[in-house]
Amino acid sequence: MDLEHLATASGEWLRGAGPESDIVMSSRVRLARNVEGFPFLGRADVEQRRQLEAILRDAVTGALADAGEGDAGVLYMPLEDAADLDLRLLVERHLISRELADGEGARGVAFSRSEGTAVMVNEEDHLRAQVLRSGLELEACWVDLDRLDDAVAERVAYAFSPDLGYLTACPTNVGTGMRVSVMLHLPGLVWTEQIPKVFESIRRMGLAVRGLYGEGTQASGDFFQVSNQRTLGVSETEIIGSLGSVVPRILSYERRAREGLLEKSRRQVDDRVSRAYGMLRHARTISSEETLLFLSAVRLGVNLGLIDDLPISRVNELFILSQPAHLQKISGQVLEREARNAARAEFLRLRLNGRDSAGA
Amino acid sequence: MDLEHLATASGEWLRGAGPESDIVMSSRVRLARNVEGFPFLGRADVEQRRQLEAILRDAVTGALADAGEGDAGVLYMPLEDAADLDLRLLVERHLISRELADGEGARGVAFSRSEGTAVMVNEEDHLRAQVLRSGLELEACWVDLDRLDDAVAERVAYAFSPDLGYLTACPTNVGTGMRVSVMLHLPGLVWTEQIPKVFESIRRMGLAVRGLYGEGTQASGDFFQVSNQRTLGVSETEIIGSLGSVVPRILSYERRAREGLLEKSRRQVDDRVSRAYGMLRHARTISSEETLLFLSAVRLGVNLGLIDDLPISRVNELFILSQPAHLQKISGQVLEREARNAARAEFLRLRLNGRDSAGA
Repeated sequence: MDLEHLATASGEWLRGAGPESDIVMSSRVRLARNVEGFPFLGRADVEQRRQLEAILRDAVTGALADAGEGDAGVLYMPLEDAADLDLRLLVERHLISRELADGEGARGVAFSRSEGTAVMVNEEDHLRAQVLRSGLELEACWVDLDRLDDAVAERVAYAFSPDLGYLTACPTNVGTGMRVSVMLHLPGLVWTEQIPKVFESIRRMGLAVRGLYGEGTQASGDFFQVSNQRTLGVSETEIIGSLGSVVPRILSYERRAREGLLEKSRRQVDDRVSRAYGMLRHARTISSEETLLFLSAVRLGVNLGLIDDLPISRVNELFILSQPAHLQKISGQVLEREARNAARAEFLRLRLNGRDSAGA
Repeated sequence: MDLEHLATASGEWLRGAGPESDIVMSSRVRLARNVEGFPFLGRADVEQRRQLEAILRDAVTGALADAGEGDAGVLYMPLEDAADLDLRLLVERHLISRELADGEGARGVAFSRSEGTAVMVNEEDHLRAQVLRSGLELEACWVDLDRLDDAVAERVAYAFSPDLGYLTACPTNVGTGMRVSVMLHLPGLVWTEQIPKVFESIRRMGLAVRGLYGEGTQASGDFFQVSNQRTLGVSETEIIGSLGSVVPRILSYERRAREGLLEKSRRQVDDRVSRAYGMLRHARTISSEETLLFLSAVRLGVNLGLIDDLPISRVNELFILSQPAHLQKISGQVLEREARNAARAEFLRLRLNGRDSAGA
């Protein structure tokens, strides 16, 4: 499969529509499932892996087509022999996990053209299915994912215990096998240094907070993923409900922080936003980390009405497209760090100035 | 006298023409003179000061008119009751020293409309006359100043000793009373960290190196003033010759440093220059210090051909016009530090974007 087309535009779920999308970048629900009669992958041999991959490839592509995408809307990419750059590209788009990219043996990913739905085959569990949507749309994600899950279940028998629920490789997923998360943009709370306090209360309410790329990664660019911890002994609706009750409170903290910033230090906020925009439009070499920080400030600026010549969709898209694998796909070659930083600066100038403005 | 017109344009000597003006901002020669029959100012009473001011006001305005400016081209500003903002404006334009601005009693300054010639009355000495020119033009400065000095001498008798030469309030000026200096822009040597080495050799050759506003001030924005130390036992031509032989060597060091930067780290230089330009065009609040640093990088960028949409004259002018007193004159009101920083940012955006670009 050719991933070129992925490199020049982001998935629809990042377009910046959807409820509360000034703060909620995206909502995501995923299910972990395993196939009855096969060992968990940690104990599966090469041949069992291969069998699983073959069975599940058919099952998930068929289910995806049935669940609404139609045959033409479904892509399957086997990953065993995939080029490293393609694997990184899929990670950067949140279509696969780093674990699946770095894994070995027969494995793959099926996803819809809109990239709203993706199913990993032979990651930690036999199946990891996710639905992503722009803005705060957890219920809608769940409705879509539930339908897909049913469609897969018509094709394969899941490992299921009447006592425990769905069986998973890691005990933390047993039960519903469900992880529900929202990606939040919280520059107001970061800039006013209220993040530790807010995170403490999120954690006290039994939710987890992580960085941009999930478990073990540092939060960066003022983006944070909030997700459920419990999967056992609670229903899917309860899990969604627990996020659904906490997230609005975080949103109101963030909004109050933004209002406070505008009231008390409008000029400093405006300056920080405008300088960040200037840096993105003028840098000749720029790292991923700097880009993330500046884009975060610009995103806040657009949402506060301080920047009015830039649609939020373009800003959201740049978070994805300015990442290393995307830049290399766009430029059509493997680039070392220094060349990537120069290519990133050029790409940002083009996208934000509408032309390759030399110093100008 | 109304100084409004000074606030919106710089003096001609800063327009960026003249030999070597990519590095030499300006050349300056000044003479210290005292009037025979009057004590030095440290021992003069209020009435003697007043007499001196009256005598010298006539003498210098007459001499300036004779020496080439004509009556219409000469301005005299008494400073005893001058508004503080006007005094700061004159300091920022290098027309008077901080000492004269902060002084007391009858005193003043005469200058040509082009601001190339200025004579301070009752500073440390009774007279301090200077000629400023763009680029490396020490001989031409001296020719003009010598003619003015002769024209003043026709009107008042200077305190002069056949053994020592011209007598001055401070022994370091006795003899010729002459100080010759060039203001150099040395970002190449600063960025490549060769400044200490170069300064050491300048000092070993008997010259002094100082910051942007003369004695006791910190060098800033990569600008340095190089001047003679000796005034006694050497002729005027020898003093000019000593700078004339050292400055070209500094210029060649600076040029080599700039070439080295372009060869070895063109991208980093381009990035630094372009980001500085971006900051000046996007900041919403900016201090004098930051402005100086960014303008210095932009000035280098223009001279290296990395920025091609900005005439050097505009950059040179911004160094002067973005200073506190100028900003307040331009805005027509006294501004506290925070308001000044915002006014400075707005002024820079206007001058560099040609419009008040909101974030855009």
